[in-house]
Amino acid sequence: MQRSDHRPGTLIPGGAVFPHRHLTGIHGLEPHEITFLLDEAEQWIEANRAPTTADKRLAGLTQINAFFENSTRTLLSFEIAGKRLGADVVNMHAAQSSVKKGETLIDTAMTLNAMRADVIVIRHMSSGAVRLIADKVDCPVLNAGDGRHEHPTQALLDALTIRRRLGGIANKRVVICGDLLHSRVARSNILALTALAAEVRVCAPSTLMPPEIERMGVTAFTDFDQAIAHADVVMMLRLQTERMSGGYVPSMREYHLRYGLTMERLERYAPDALVMHPGPMNRGVEIDSAVADHVERSAITEQVAMGVAVRMACLDVLTRRSRGVEGWA
Amino acid sequence: MQRSDHRPGTLIPGGAVFPHRHLTGIHGLEPHEITFLLDEAEQWIEANRAPTTADKRLAGLTQINAFFENSTRTLLSFEIAGKRLGADVVNMHAAQSSVKKGETLIDTAMTLNAMRADVIVIRHMSSGAVRLIADKVDCPVLNAGDGRHEHPTQALLDALTIRRRLGGIANKRVVICGDLLHSRVARSNILALTALAAEVRVCAPSTLMPPEIERMGVTAFTDFDQAIAHADVVMMLRLQTERMSGGYVPSMREYHLRYGLTMERLERYAPDALVMHPGPMNRGVEIDSAVADHVERSAITEQVAMGVAVRMACLDVLTRRSRGVEGWA
Amino acid sequence: MQRSDHRPGTLIPGGAVFPHRHLTGIHGLEPHEITFLLDEAEQWIEANRAPTTADKRLAGLTQINAFFENSTRTLLSFEIAGKRLGADVVNMHAAQSSVKKGETLIDTAMTLNAMRADVIVIRHMSSGAVRLIADKVDCPVLNAGDGRHEHPTQALLDALTIRRRLGGIANKRVVICGDLLHSRVARSNILALTALAAEVRVCAPSTLMPPEIERMGVTAFTDFDQAIAHADVVMMLRLQTERMSGGYVPSMREYHLRYGLTMERLERYAPDALVMHPGPMNRGVEIDSAVADHVERSAITEQVAMGVAVRMACLDVLTRRSRGVEGWA
Repeated sequence: MQRSDHRPGTLIPGGAVFPHRHLTGIHGLEPHEITFLLDEAEQWIEANRAPTTADKRLAGLTQINAFFENSTRTLLSFEIAGKRLGADVVNMHAAQSSVKKGETLIDTAMTLNAMRADVIVIRHMSSGAVRLIADKVDCPVLNAGDGRHEHPTQALLDALTIRRRLGGIANKRVVICGDLLHSRVARSNILALTALAAEVRVCAPSTLMPPEIERMGVTAFTDFDQAIAHADVVMMLRLQTERMSGGYVPSMREYHLRYGLTMERLERYAPDALVMHPGPMNRGVEIDSAVADHVERSAITEQVAMGVAVRMACLDVLTRRSRGVEGWA
Repeated sequence: MQRSDHRPGTLIPGGAVFPHRHLTGIHGLEPHEITFLLDEAEQWIEANRAPTTADKRLAGLTQINAFFENSTRTLLSFEIAGKRLGADVVNMHAAQSSVKKGETLIDTAMTLNAMRADVIVIRHMSSGAVRLIADKVDCPVLNAGDGRHEHPTQALLDALTIRRRLGGIANKRVVICGDLLHSRVARSNILALTALAAEVRVCAPSTLMPPEIERMGVTAFTDFDQAIAHADVVMMLRLQTERMSGGYVPSMREYHLRYGLTMERLERYAPDALVMHPGPMNRGVEIDSAVADHVERSAITEQVAMGVAVRMACLDVLTRRSRGVEGWA
Repeated sequence: MQRSDHRPGTLIPGGAVFPHRHLTGIHGLEPHEITFLLDEAEQWIEANRAPTTADKRLAGLTQINAFFENSTRTLLSFEIAGKRLGADVVNMHAAQSSVKKGETLIDTAMTLNAMRADVIVIRHMSSGAVRLIADKVDCPVLNAGDGRHEHPTQALLDALTIRRRLGGIANKRVVICGDLLHSRVARSNILALTALAAEVRVCAPSTLMPPEIERMGVTAFTDFDQAIAHADVVMMLRLQTERMSGGYVPSMREYHLRYGLTMERLERYAPDALVMHPGPMNRGVEIDSAVADHVERSAITEQVAMGVAVRMACLDVLTRRSRGVEGWA
């Protein structure tokens, strides 16, 4: 397994601590900082296999999950991560929020801050909303997905999954396929995987391909079969229901024909590839059940497990300063 | 009081442990297994009377309440039960769930499993959904009501209430009255009470009476006065608002006249009967306030209290294997 | 700072304990009882500055937040307050509640009671609903806002903010401006501030001024500039969106012109006044951003911080009897 040579929980190589107050995106992280977060997550994978109260390092801390956009999976994952670390976890749902009463985002941020949140996890429909809040509060802010911008913990959990399954990330051919135009998951993954020296290919119909995506250091394909040739990893993106009709995609059937990952396609063009999907899946649209449920090839449920571990690591690392952890305070 | 002669917390008679991984229904439980769960619940009744942190046996465990159908009371009861036992309780509301994004039930189950739920409590509008999930996950699953199928903890709390009030269940005449056609509460109660040798009568207008219900070992009545004659227990079911109009019931007024439990009717036909209702009540429809609030005759709030105790017992018993409790692991 | 001469946590002056089972309103509280609650809150202000698990005095207690009306801020504040004190906090949202199934409020109360709530926090759209519930349950009930009636913890946190900023409340000129007709915040504040011997002025357009408000011991103004002359505190109320159209207010622009707190107005008429707002604010309607964000003059985020401290104090004080605290049981 490709890992840096330091023990989890220690400082990052060279003796420096993780220098960022927030995790608003993968953008701006150095490769060794990404690796450091993955290394930190490793310790929680084993710990998560069975119940334990041995380590409640976030006891006494208030973690507020401010979700302005619904996301059951990500919210559950952050809530479980925080509770396993002993934090007082409080969920703020947009549906019941002052946002509906016309309060500005900044006022909401100031309010959470005044209640002394020790860490705020934010999901928001607008790109940049998380950064805006981060600038206004005294505590670390974790981006749980903002608009079309970033979803950094998703990229970290995907990188961790690949690293554990393939023994490393550098030089692996990873193909990301689907709605690249609207996907923060794709964006964060491209940033993380290129930083870690993977060969990243992207594939989408031209209507869902961002015009200058190759500037991000990836190779763009519109032909799916070509894209996945000799891939080490095929990462399928969810086709949002709202894109299925209208101008983006001719029809679901057509989309599945050209961009759906079937067992036949996988066997023929990428016989050794690991299959990933951030979930929730549209079975029969972007991915077939035979692929999604394949015992050896699919890493989809493993991604979910890595998600909890990665989020525990991020919550832990970002609160070390305020908790006065030696070497960090 | 009718109790088996073993102490709460020990193995069931004969030295065997509770042999079921899940509690998806009363169907399939042996009478002594039902009695065992009731005995286990007894210890929590007293413990619940005052705050205590003495026993947090579920500390470190993650309990996920996955409610695909709203139910404030049942959710509150399971949430309180889990928290009193020290579990990390996480609620997943359907309204915010990936289900809305078209995710299959199985994928949701796999996701909860991958996050390492230690016990999953499920409420679902479809009969059999709970069983489907139970087959896919590694942890115990507790049915909190699925479609028209079962609501086993409701039946257990009702049985516990009767046992404590009347000193036993065998040979007691219990009358269940109301919308039997759509009621999982009725179904689970019939299974539990007949297993424990009660004489069970059911009563409903013919439009709300399942055709072959007598095969379940009960006697069916359409005349309410006849049904409750010399009853030990009269258990009223909630008339769902959606049945009040349309073909099932001529009118609310008519329903109340023929099937509403009034004080006069109770005094005349069942002067010694205990009155029960799973809640929430439609006062003035299936039950009059004078009956519902009767200090001696009504056991309705006691049912709620028994609910918390029964759910603590079920959470405790079902997680013994994974917690490595001696004799269970 | 104006404080009574006893230490937080001890009995109120004269050796008597806080004699009320519930906190349904400021109405009925003696001035020294209000002061006692403020004194109690002081200890939590410092404690809230950093994470600590040193004091979990509500461990083992079940706190149910029954919110029949949405309020993100107040719910968050009570939830954080309870969790910091170690309580098992359970939220009951109206949207998922049996209330929708037609259950009466009393039945909901009896249900929460039967589950053994140790303290119930209630928010309700109907004036008097909290009192109704308080009469039916065995545990203390805390009013988190009911109809147009009261919002006592808001008044307490406002009083605490004023006391800390100005060194006392007696003889301070406090001007409350906005929709007095529909505001429970105004009502509770008037009761608390007059009890503590402040000079209270109220100001509103005549359409939003309750007819006999001066009977509450305040002076009523319709001219905003006159009202705030030489004020020590200017407390702005939120203009509910639903009042902005229709007969109450000619237009938002007009309202802002006549009753909006601008920097110019503040400098000219009340150059030393502290500015307060219960939030969420309509920036540009009842208050300008320059005022709301003024580092020295605005106490708005401080109010939020005081809110958590005041709620911790109330939860602590009201549960002392049931927890058997010496001198209280």
